[in-house]
Amino acid sequence: MSSSWDQPVSKELRMVEEEIMRNVRSSEPLLTEIATHVIGSGGKRMRPGVSLLAFRAVGGTDLSKIIMLSAAIELIHSATLVHDDINDGAEIRRGVIAACRKYGTQRALITGDFLFVKGFRLGGLAGSDDIVEIVADTCAGMAESEMLQSLVEYDHFLPLETYLQIIEGKTAKPIEASAQVGAYMGGGSADQVEEMSTYGLNIGCAFQIVDDILDITGEEDTLGKKRGMDILEGKPNLPLILAMRDDSPGSARIREVFGKQSKTQEEVDEVLHLIQATDALDEAMRYAESYREKALKGLDVLPDSEYKDALRALADTVLERNR
Amino acid sequence: MSSSWDQPVSKELRMVEEEIMRNVRSSEPLLTEIATHVIGSGGKRMRPGVSLLAFRAVGGTDLSKIIMLSAAIELIHSATLVHDDINDGAEIRRGVIAACRKYGTQRALITGDFLFVKGFRLGGLAGSDDIVEIVADTCAGMAESEMLQSLVEYDHFLPLETYLQIIEGKTAKPIEASAQVGAYMGGGSADQVEEMSTYGLNIGCAFQIVDDILDITGEEDTLGKKRGMDILEGKPNLPLILAMRDDSPGSARIREVFGKQSKTQEEVDEVLHLIQATDALDEAMRYAESYREKALKGLDVLPDSEYKDALRALADTVLERNR
Repeated sequence: MSSSWDQPVSKELRMVEEEIMRNVRSSEPLLTEIATHVIGSGGKRMRPGVSLLAFRAVGGTDLSKIIMLSAAIELIHSATLVHDDINDGAEIRRGVIAACRKYGTQRALITGDFLFVKGFRLGGLAGSDDIVEIVADTCAGMAESEMLQSLVEYDHFLPLETYLQIIEGKTAKPIEASAQVGAYMGGGSADQVEEMSTYGLNIGCAFQIVDDILDITGEEDTLGKKRGMDILEGKPNLPLILAMRDDSPGSARIREVFGKQSKTQEEVDEVLHLIQATDALDEAMRYAESYREKALKGLDVLPDSEYKDALRALADTVLERNR
Repeated sequence: MSSSWDQPVSKELRMVEEEIMRNVRSSEPLLTEIATHVIGSGGKRMRPGVSLLAFRAVGGTDLSKIIMLSAAIELIHSATLVHDDINDGAEIRRGVIAACRKYGTQRALITGDFLFVKGFRLGGLAGSDDIVEIVADTCAGMAESEMLQSLVEYDHFLPLETYLQIIEGKTAKPIEASAQVGAYMGGGSADQVEEMSTYGLNIGCAFQIVDDILDITGEEDTLGKKRGMDILEGKPNLPLILAMRDDSPGSARIREVFGKQSKTQEEVDEVLHLIQATDALDEAMRYAESYREKALKGLDVLPDSEYKDALRALADTVLERNR
């Protein structure tokens, strides 16, 4: 994913980065090391980028609190990634060895908790009660979606509504919250705050669907992780759900393999090929495009500015990204 | 541990319980179930008890915020217990099957995060910036101590200072923070807040040392878990450290077994007997008594009241407890 979309807030993003780094310093050197490994593995910084652009786009000027809040959001996001990797038994994250592999589950779990605490501390200090509620409710929703996702593993007839409920809670609402917090802190009108939320939610859904597609079609070197992880782990993503729903022989075979708790690499590769032979990927991309359209409509409420342009560019980047 | 010490705040503790229960309800039934399993496993509610008694003892009257904060502290405490149990591979917690055993690591981890978020939300809404900093810094300190503890596993020459650093961060400072938050929210003088912190810190150290002793001498039925877990898991607790420090044959044998990553039940039982043949348990108890004395001195700053009496009773209970 090109990061040029965030150019108008590049100075602010550097301030966020400094704020994050200040917050991962610990009296326990190993904790600092693991936290820095997690935070420093790069990542797209999409959430802080969105919050800062939303803040600027509605005319926000006083940076002090939005920098802290953007850093808080990224710290919390990083905490959930570390814990997700433990739950998924991930080996690679952002092209780098996952913290739980490098340092062990126990220490990764502790570091996740540490990042959570640091994020909530910063959010609590910078934000009003409204902000605390938005951030906390979003995090509770993430836990709820993760739990729901754990219940539908290996389910080869997952209703689309359940899938959408999961990706909303897991991915889209955190991005919605980023946009909402940015517009709110920037002094946006009620209408602007609401429309920016719409933008964030829809861009988040599009982002997750493209993530799903990349799990099937992505270049492993660019992606920084192996293809077919969702298939291997029994996570019904959108192209999978679409490819498993009809009564063709290919669909039946995908269902058969997908439902197995243990799969060979050959079986995963076979499913990857079978999905590519259907129109599931095109259809999934049409879903993503439709979310992008809805996201872009949310921008109508903003006056023209380089920040608005950047939010539009992000919407394009999300769909065109290859990692 | 008898719970009669908390009788003067029994009404307030019931309100805390209701507040906790309101906060663990989730739209995802399984999350509610696991969170309720964790919260409902009983536990001593020592932290909310201490915060409420400190609040009342300095003359606090308006209950609304201290109830929320006490619930927040217990929610965060429960979150750390769930994550600790994952890290320790615990089977039993408070006499009940551990969440990670009953529901699996993945779902227990998610539930821990959920409880964290709910605790921080409540703390952020009820507390000023001062309170947010106290609670968050305490939590960060817990993570730091957990990390340090992970680094000294199987260490049979752990300096006493490192041991004390670990138990302070892991157990004593969270109880210090409970007392501090209670006295602060109750409008106590700077002196009272400081002395209540002293009380909490020292009662916490005493509590952890008695915990260490019970790991060696406790009745398994009363304790609600197996004896000798620290030995098995290579966690140097105080009686162990004291029993391993000299050059007697018994001490050498304890060191030998303790340092092994994998131990038989017979070896654990042998070490339990060897420790009991030394004066390590008596000496550890003298440490605990000395912490109790320091804690009690902290109470001098309080006017006489049933709450002060209760804090004194808690100090006795901590030393006399058998679970």
